[in-house]
Amino acid sequence: MKKSIFDNRSKGISTEKSDAAIRMSVTPWEVEGDINYDKLIEEFGTRPLDSHLFYRLKDPMPPPVKRGMCFSHRDLDKWLDAYDNGEKVTVLSGRGPSEKMHIGHLTLYAIPKYFQDVYKCTAYIPVSDDEKFYVKENLEIEDVEMFANDNILDILAMGFDPNKTIVHKDFEHTKIYKYAAQVAKKITYSTAKAVFGLKAENNIGWVFYPAMQATHILYPQFIEGPHLTLVPIGIDQDPFIRATRDIAEKFGFQKPATIHKKLAPGLEGPKMSSSGKNAIWLSDDEDTVANKVHKYAFSGGQPSIKEHREKGGNPDIDVSFLYLKYFFEEDDNKLEQIDRDYRDGSLLSGELKEYFIEKVNNYLKEHRRRREIVEKNIDKYMLRD
Amino acid sequence: MKKSIFDNRSKGISTEKSDAAIRMSVTPWEVEGDINYDKLIEEFGTRPLDSHLFYRLKDPMPPPVKRGMCFSHRDLDKWLDAYDNGEKVTVLSGRGPSEKMHIGHLTLYAIPKYFQDVYKCTAYIPVSDDEKFYVKENLEIEDVEMFANDNILDILAMGFDPNKTIVHKDFEHTKIYKYAAQVAKKITYSTAKAVFGLKAENNIGWVFYPAMQATHILYPQFIEGPHLTLVPIGIDQDPFIRATRDIAEKFGFQKPATIHKKLAPGLEGPKMSSSGKNAIWLSDDEDTVANKVHKYAFSGGQPSIKEHREKGGNPDIDVSFLYLKYFFEEDDNKLEQIDRDYRDGSLLSGELKEYFIEKVNNYLKEHRRRREIVEKNIDKYMLRD
Repeated sequence: MKKSIFDNRSKGISTEKSDAAIRMSVTPWEVEGDINYDKLIEEFGTRPLDSHLFYRLKDPMPPPVKRGMCFSHRDLDKWLDAYDNGEKVTVLSGRGPSEKMHIGHLTLYAIPKYFQDVYKCTAYIPVSDDEKFYVKENLEIEDVEMFANDNILDILAMGFDPNKTIVHKDFEHTKIYKYAAQVAKKITYSTAKAVFGLKAENNIGWVFYPAMQATHILYPQFIEGPHLTLVPIGIDQDPFIRATRDIAEKFGFQKPATIHKKLAPGLEGPKMSSSGKNAIWLSDDEDTVANKVHKYAFSGGQPSIKEHREKGGNPDIDVSFLYLKYFFEEDDNKLEQIDRDYRDGSLLSGELKEYFIEKVNNYLKEHRRRREIVEKNIDKYMLRD
Repeated sequence: MKKSIFDNRSKGISTEKSDAAIRMSVTPWEVEGDINYDKLIEEFGTRPLDSHLFYRLKDPMPPPVKRGMCFSHRDLDKWLDAYDNGEKVTVLSGRGPSEKMHIGHLTLYAIPKYFQDVYKCTAYIPVSDDEKFYVKENLEIEDVEMFANDNILDILAMGFDPNKTIVHKDFEHTKIYKYAAQVAKKITYSTAKAVFGLKAENNIGWVFYPAMQATHILYPQFIEGPHLTLVPIGIDQDPFIRATRDIAEKFGFQKPATIHKKLAPGLEGPKMSSSGKNAIWLSDDEDTVANKVHKYAFSGGQPSIKEHREKGGNPDIDVSFLYLKYFFEEDDNKLEQIDRDYRDGSLLSGELKEYFIEKVNNYLKEHRRRREIVEKNIDKYMLRD
């Protein structure tokens, strides 16, 4: 195992709260005080991904896993125990297809891909075309289908195993309705209203959707029988997981485990959400990527080269650096060197951006190559009726 | 055309409100003042099935159609116009399978069968297994499936044309979910709550079901394009038709037409609903039918034979007579004779019951024979995924 400040494990973390979580608390959106992850753990009643658990995770880990983007969990320890005991385990990450995908989205799907790769388990990718159709007023069913098919290719192009990956769309694999009905019968309107914040003016498809979402999460167990499923998600989604864990018991299923991921930074930093209009889309060509990074990528550098050389930059709030850290730079030593050089001023903001652009464009080139292969073999992944 | 008091047409009805409707107002449940059909027409804003429209209906008509059980409608005239103009028309009656079927249920399905037979149109029979599963707390999914398959055979055994009949179950033909989602997006929770009387403690499947029901009614148009569908139903179901008519326009569909049927009498008369526990089930054997009629069938006869011979009986509140009138006795002359003989006391209550028992048992024997044939050819009727 490499010794690097960017591999948390090499640092001999021994406190209950990992250094990773502490280190991670300085990010563009947290600088603004928007999100306090420690407080979220307390508030949601989840458990921090502590050093003990972190050390149990098998190598090789991709950047979002090894560099502290995963900070909290429910029953990940039980999931690992089940794996160690030779029991069946699965991993699951859904997708709501309301738009094309950008690089911020990749950080999530790297997590189920990691668990599939290293723990050799089946990955489920339920695509909630119905949810996005219900919730987005102006989204027509044809739009949702187009985004669904497009998003599926992007997710699978990350390298999911065609023999161990099951993708299904609610408007295509409609057999799921029969299972969703069984789940729906166990959720009252009051409960759905409280958990999902439903309003009287919401349409009744929207009201029904919580049943479909819970069914997605329980689907590996509906299909393969009771076992532990790990669900990597943003912590803001945890209330739905918690509701689903309650429902699981009513079917004699195991409560799904989860691992919580922090939000991916927006291209423009603190003020932008991860779905900001200036995101780098996976379909962006090389020049577009370069232009967007030059023009919009939030920088932790100083206003002038002179000042930067003197004072150094701050990688902790620099979006180019953060994306290298959380996704594009696999090499711990290289990342450590960039961190050091940026902080001491020897690496300029423009130079960092150029390196970032090169990494992104190389990734996207390879991504598109893999996407074409996936497209030819799409039937291997899809669960249709 | 036969001249008979039991064929409304032969009576030269010319008033806006048909004699049939007036005659029909003396029935066991109306004697008790439970239901005033004229008031319902006013309340629901539907139109009476007046003599003008009644005369347009093609022969041969089965008892429930020709003897005034159908008393109200929406756009039946437009449906007949469309037929006359050579346009496509369809007929549709659904079924919620929460129990086995009894003879009271037959009076409804005789109506779509009539329209299919005489107007040579496709009949749709959507089976809402999901609805009954959502609404009946103790009904398991296996129960609903069992009742659904059983009910479908009973309905089809009435003689629906295998080449012109489409039956689908929501838990089997789940492709309908994609259409129901499009309908659901156009129904707010507030609206569904108002029309269906939803409560906060109802499950979210129940909340979603209005979308499925509207989709059932619009399904012929989803599948075959815009045209007029006639939906024979109990008038208590009219608010759902009205809601669906509003939705139809949003899809560029035609507003479904409807013909409203009165409630079928319960075996025990005024105090029993049509699903009373002493109903005559289609699966009852000959002795059971005889026993039930002797023991429970509400009689319009007098307490003693002597009194009956003197004062005569009242066929208008006699359940055996009413079932002959509305379903089992095709022959107008025979029914007229029974009516006369019962009123003048020459036909005793026991004799009327014997005749009724014979008619029911003959019907059920033939019904079972047809049911077996249907069972062998069930794939011809079913729309599966």
